[in-house]
Parts: sequence; structure tokens; C-alpha cells
Amino acid sequence: MECGVSPIIGFRFSLYPMADDFVKVIKTALGETDTSNVWMHTDDVSTVIRGKQIHVFNVAKAIALSAAKTGKHIALSGTFSAGCPGDTAGDAYLDKSDEVANIDGTKQYVSSQFALYPMNNPSYMDIIYREVNRAKEEGVFNDTMQYASGIHGDIHDVFAFYEKAFSNARSDNHKHLVMTVSMSINSPSHGGR
Amino acid sequence: MECGVSPIIGFRFSLYPMADDFVKVIKTALGETDTSNVWMHTDDVSTVIRGKQIHVFNVAKAIALSAAKTGKHIALSGTFSAGCPGDTAGDAYLDKSDEVANIDGTKQYVSSQFALYPMNNPSYMDIIYREVNRAKEEGVFNDTMQYASGIHGDIHDVFAFYEKAFSNARSDNHKHLVMTVSMSINSPSHGGR
Repeated sequence: MECGVSPIIGFRFSLYPMADDFVKVIKTALGETDTSNVWMHTDDVSTVIRGKQIHVFNVAKAIALSAAKTGKHIALSGTFSAGCPGDTAGDAYLDKSDEVANIDGTKQYVSSQFALYPMNNPSYMDIIYREVNRAKEEGVFNDTMQYASGIHGDIHDVFAFYEKAFSNARSDNHKHLVMTVSMSINSPSHGGR
Repeated sequence: MECGVSPIIGFRFSLYPMADDFVKVIKTALGETDTSNVWMHTDDVSTVIRGKQIHVFNVAKAIALSAAKTGKHIALSGTFSAGCPGDTAGDAYLDKSDEVANIDGTKQYVSSQFALYPMNNPSYMDIIYREVNRAKEEGVFNDTMQYASGIHGDIHDVFAFYEKAFSNARSDNHKHLVMTVSMSINSPSHGGR
């Protein structure tokens, strides 16, 4: 198999509204988000979006921000992937311009955790530590913990960090990269932020 | 750094009840589960349990099954880890016997998705395909999809497969293994199962 010849970025995620009307919250968030720049498919467990990196991150943030505006406790959990050797060439809108479709600067505190998995790369631990240090420099680092790192702050800063980390943690020699992100918004556990 | 000298298995997860009384559902599920065989810590985004593999999987299943009994739509999403070179030796109950603490054979349909990430292993794609084929042989395979594989069936069969896959996908030479699992229970999207 050839590894990572495609520029496609994918994000397989689930949006979890902790609310009796979760169907409405999910449908509203997906409906309010302009997803025209990404290929999207939803099944009974998760949704996958695929396309250029800039659009995948833009759409992911827009869905989270839209659902957050309900004021309800929501979570967004998923996996960003690039360069997977098992990936297919199709189902991605790579001819789109770099102009993002969703622009909404509303501030929203998020607490999240992430982990980077650079595949088939002997130096992967160095890469992970480097990106965690970058989070500290950028002021979004929250906490050290087993199997993940805590990232928090305004949703725009947090997503900007994630997109940067995802770019920095892969290279031409090591194209297959996976990043898990678990994000919590409007939670009673956030200590009144 | 030395890689994977510890037999500790960890599972960092979040339980998401899609219900207004999500706090009660989570607390009840954690309260009804015997977690004495694992080290456990909860923060504002997730919970981590650590210990012997048999107990980590037993506790994870028991929490999901307990929450499922509310009849509400719940999700369990998380990452199993073994042999992480950044892991610490503490915070695990490795002196426990192999007798599991939670025994409840109640049937419960679950639909889930998983991905295996054998770290720093040039043969990792072969391992992934092998375990996906095992799912097909064992009758729990649901669907092929980008970045994950669908696994479904009775919760006991599904967890048995996951534990087996997690054992088979790591070796003495390649101890660092990560497996993401996203599980959906009592969902209106499951097509009336």
C-alpha cells in the first residue's frame, strides 16, 4: 500500500448534546453550519467530514459553536486523520478555494483533551512533546494527564491550536497522522467559567 | 525513554447520556459499578481507569451497561492505551486477582466504531486488517467506513472482541498500542434494533 499520497483530511466525530432534545440540537447545529466545502456522511454512530484541512477544521468548529449556543452541555469527540494508507481518493472536495464558509467570532469557553498519534514514526514521542509545549506557549494548555493533554480556552484559540498541531505533527516522510480530540462545552464541571 | 515496560492498561473515556438528567445517569452508572479493581480519576472532560486489562475492560463494560439500563440514549467514547512510553508506573492496581468484579449478563444491543493504532510499527496496517477480519469471523462486524470499522451486536460479544483485538494487536516488540472506541446505545438511529 502507498502511504499518504492524498491531501485529504478527515474528521470522524460525534456531537453529544446532554439533553432530552438531543436530536433537535444535532440537526440544528448541522443545519446552521455551511458544510458545502466538505464531503459529509452520517451513520448511526458518527459523522465524517472530509476535504481540505482548512475546511475540515472550520466546519468542526462551526458545528461545536452552533450547538454551544443552545446553552446546553454538549460534547464533541472525534478523530482527525491524514495520510491513512487505507484511505480512498474519493469523497473529498479538494477543488474548493481556501475561503472558509463559516465565520462567527462568538466567544465560547471550551475544555478539551487531545492526543497525537504520528503513525510509523520512531520519533513520535518527540513530536508529541513538542506540540504539547507549543500549547503551553500559546496559553491554551490546561493540564497534564495520562494518555492525553488538557487544552482549554476560547473555542477559536483552541481550534487554531489544534489545526496548527495537526499540521506540525506530520511531514512528507511521515504522512499518516491521527489526532483525537474530546471537547466539553457548557459543562457544570468547568468550575463556573 | 523506555517503551512499554509496564503491564498497565488504561482507558480514558467519557460517558455521554443524551438526557437532561445526564449528571444523575453518570453518577448512577459509576455508583452501580464496582471499580475497586481499577485506579480511577475523573476530571472536567473525561474519566481514566487503569489497571490489569481484564479489569479495565470489565469496568468499562459495566459502566456502559449500567447507563444503558436507564433506557436513555447514551454513548461511551474513549481510548484504550497500553505501553505508552510516557506512562507512569503508578496509579494502577496490578496486585489485584483476575476475578472480575462486575458480572451482569443482561443483553444489550450496541453499535460502535473502533480504530487500532499500533505505534511505531511498520506492519501496523497488516495488524489493523487482521483484527478487522477477526471481527468478521466473530460475527460482530457491522460496516466498513473511513478511519474506523463498525462493530455491533450484544454488548458482551462486542466487548469480548475489543479485549481480544487489543491483546492481539500488541506484542513484545511493539508494546505501545492505542485503540479508540465510540459506542452508541439506545439510539433512535439504530433502526429499531
